[in-house]
Amino acid sequence: MNSRIACPALRTKVMSGEEAAALIDPGSTVGMSGFTGSGYPKAVPLALAARIEAAHAAGDPFRVRVWTGASTGPELDGALAKADGIEFRLPYNSDPVAREKINAGQMDYFDMHLSQVAPMAWQGFLGPLDTAVVEVSGIRPDGSLIPSSSVGNNKTWLDRAQKVIIEVNRWQNEALEGMHDIYYGTALPPHRVPIPLTQPDDRIGEPGFRCDPEKIVAIVETDAPDRNLPFAPPDAAAHAIAGHLLEFLRHEVARGRLPATLLPIQSGVGNIANAVLSGLVTSPFEQMTAYTEVIQDGMLDLLDSGKLLMASATAFSLSPEAAARINADMARYRDRMILRPQEISNHPELIRRLGCIAMNGLIEADIYGAVNSTHVMGSRIQNGIGGSGDFARNAYISIFMTPSTAKGGKISAIVPQASHVDHISQDVQVLVTEQGLADLRGLSPKQRAELIIGNCAHPDYRPALADYFERARKGAYGQHSPSLPGEALSWHQRFIDTGSMLA
Amino acid sequence: MNSRIACPALRTKVMSGEEAAALIDPGSTVGMSGFTGSGYPKAVPLALAARIEAAHAAGDPFRVRVWTGASTGPELDGALAKADGIEFRLPYNSDPVAREKINAGQMDYFDMHLSQVAPMAWQGFLGPLDTAVVEVSGIRPDGSLIPSSSVGNNKTWLDRAQKVIIEVNRWQNEALEGMHDIYYGTALPPHRVPIPLTQPDDRIGEPGFRCDPEKIVAIVETDAPDRNLPFAPPDAAAHAIAGHLLEFLRHEVARGRLPATLLPIQSGVGNIANAVLSGLVTSPFEQMTAYTEVIQDGMLDLLDSGKLLMASATAFSLSPEAAARINADMARYRDRMILRPQEISNHPELIRRLGCIAMNGLIEADIYGAVNSTHVMGSRIQNGIGGSGDFARNAYISIFMTPSTAKGGKISAIVPQASHVDHISQDVQVLVTEQGLADLRGLSPKQRAELIIGNCAHPDYRPALADYFERARKGAYGQHSPSLPGEALSWHQRFIDTGSMLA
Repeated sequence: MNSRIACPALRTKVMSGEEAAALIDPGSTVGMSGFTGSGYPKAVPLALAARIEAAHAAGDPFRVRVWTGASTGPELDGALAKADGIEFRLPYNSDPVAREKINAGQMDYFDMHLSQVAPMAWQGFLGPLDTAVVEVSGIRPDGSLIPSSSVGNNKTWLDRAQKVIIEVNRWQNEALEGMHDIYYGTALPPHRVPIPLTQPDDRIGEPGFRCDPEKIVAIVETDAPDRNLPFAPPDAAAHAIAGHLLEFLRHEVARGRLPATLLPIQSGVGNIANAVLSGLVTSPFEQMTAYTEVIQDGMLDLLDSGKLLMASATAFSLSPEAAARINADMARYRDRMILRPQEISNHPELIRRLGCIAMNGLIEADIYGAVNSTHVMGSRIQNGIGGSGDFARNAYISIFMTPSTAKGGKISAIVPQASHVDHISQDVQVLVTEQGLADLRGLSPKQRAELIIGNCAHPDYRPALADYFERARKGAYGQHSPSLPGEALSWHQRFIDTGSMLA
Repeated sequence: MNSRIACPALRTKVMSGEEAAALIDPGSTVGMSGFTGSGYPKAVPLALAARIEAAHAAGDPFRVRVWTGASTGPELDGALAKADGIEFRLPYNSDPVAREKINAGQMDYFDMHLSQVAPMAWQGFLGPLDTAVVEVSGIRPDGSLIPSSSVGNNKTWLDRAQKVIIEVNRWQNEALEGMHDIYYGTALPPHRVPIPLTQPDDRIGEPGFRCDPEKIVAIVETDAPDRNLPFAPPDAAAHAIAGHLLEFLRHEVARGRLPATLLPIQSGVGNIANAVLSGLVTSPFEQMTAYTEVIQDGMLDLLDSGKLLMASATAFSLSPEAAARINADMARYRDRMILRPQEISNHPELIRRLGCIAMNGLIEADIYGAVNSTHVMGSRIQNGIGGSGDFARNAYISIFMTPSTAKGGKISAIVPQASHVDHISQDVQVLVTEQGLADLRGLSPKQRAELIIGNCAHPDYRPALADYFERARKGAYGQHSPSLPGEALSWHQRFIDTGSMLA
């Protein structure tokens, strides 16, 4: 077996996942690698979950606090949540088992802005970090670590943890080496300086992680694939949304408000995002760039088309087919991709400087354009805010996209008042559904409401929204953002009571 | 009379306010100077209001679109609103006449993040800017303009407007010259570069505004004071809030999470802010700095005490007594103050780099820590979001402060659900009322609710909040942020119906 551990001194620390998991104490805080199902540790969390289950079976309490980059895979969040092993977790989660535990009130979850996780951990407000468990794709002769298919908060976990457990995953492509850009120039105030990145393809750091070898208590060798979820092909609504959005971008270029190369693209994941990226393949825009969180299937198509020069992100988020495609040709893709720490991929300073075009999904928007990205019916967490706040607040243009209804028409994505707010109306500049697009820039609340109801709402809900708005314009306490508090959230209560928002 | 117009070529353009106001067309967009009652034009807006009233009396329509820095004075917002002369206004307003027009649905208002006004105007999304009306304290021999008591968006208005009207106000202190730092390094993407400011006292620009003399169509000489509102002395609640907050800061220094000099302070205005700043005068912290929006009375006390080395802001916001005090000693204060464009004073890049300690007021917070800064009962605008979003999102520690009740106890500042959201819970890290302080960093929603109800709510409302939370923990759709949509805004409806939130 050709070892990926090129540093002889570290080879002595190789052990099994079970042996490594035994080094994690009950009640401790563990910083894990992993971002949208890429580059998370696969052996130690599973072994830890087994150890926790055994402890619970013996009547002993055993839970840990888990910090990650963002969502991980079933071997981490799923297994630990199933074992009731997670006391507290941050940031973004999309694991269904963990989601159920959170929504059953059995697990505490702190859904942070992704750019703020590393600095807050460093600042000490989150408490000490006991152990880092980080997947890498190899260890160099000098002991530095070759990152895996995500970077996330790994630099910070390795820096801050008392002890470090490394998983070396030989499933990861060796040609990943050289793709990463790990910036070591951050600091705590008053010692912070400008981050010297002015274009998406700037390299400002090092290709690997530094790690004090004295802190490494275990190395586990694995050969396990990332969780790569099947690709959901865009449906008619997704294509319609993409069509409206591409027309808007062409219009902005024609008006001279965007360059013909656009500005660096940020795109969420999912079939709407993929439809937009596919639409860009046949668009008139050339020499585009992406400065985003994740590289998803549609981004590969855009790279292959030659329209996208390069993509900067912090992780891959690919289907099995796309993962195979990129692995078969990694040496070529490597020169057109950069993976960075998430505090850099999502840094407000850089998003504002580059002038990103931010495109994110949502659960619901209200008639004034406030967006709920996280809480179904105001209380049930779906996934989390992720990096959407980092991008939406600082983007050149902040775009939110959604089908106008969900659950077969029983839920309207446009509601009188959002049942939870993640993005205030100031940060929601363009709203798109399959019905149409509302350009909300520079408009007062009532002007926004007219456009959102008229352009974005589904016809089944439009009359009820217009009726609410009209009555609010007569009976509200104030006429800046007219609302009727006794009725504003009644659509959500109706859905809870009857299974449909329709009266 | 000793003219402040040292450029001979420009002296020929001097005219009356009435003559200058005649150059402003109906329906046009006017960019005015002014920020929190400082440095706004005093003659032209009054003359424009008279002209509008005359047009209306003759049956002719006449309204303009008004862009400012933030709030201005009665001679501008008040007079134009009273004349029904403002069709649309941005950003922050605190004028009572304009507020009534907005809340009566007679005037459109776009309440933007203050850092984003200048870039959005430049980007073109807000439409063309026809005329700039900018107060200065003098004109240099080379035609460059000596700024007044606020900087706001003046650089951008002068750059972007088709024609420029200057008011030269000899009431402003001549010793203001040299206090300002006007940065000309901003650009549109893809040409943006790092802003080279790493300490609050860095000077990165020029002392005055550049202005193409060809664009100047009128110069009006004035001798008129800024609107300086009386100082409201801190009451018992303000002192209690300040006490809790100072104890928290001492605790953070003791834990090594803040340096003994603290980090650059941002502070809103009002008697709570002044109580906090007064409290800092007798605190153990030394060699402090401020990187903030406005310099208010309490900031002067802190400068005089020697505890505050310097303050960076975009405007003064002083009582008449403090204005007299600063004017009597401007040459000395000048070396310890810098006034910058508001896109720099409020820039996310700089706030995050410097690690500001942000302290802002609010109207209401909900049990999960979402903050409403703007809308009374969800619909009636009070003032606006101003720069609070710029600071709260990017601060090292984001603190919000409020008395726990308003209107003699008939309104609770802590409610089951905020009736409007300006600051999402992720951006509200510390909440303080006279009852106590809740340190919300790193907590899940339910953990936050326990602290906010227990530490911050008024005893008259605490049982009802605890009861709502307990019932939501049993009956909510999801248990991440338990809520009851049918009841969540009932306190606001009760206030509208009965005049009190108390059942």
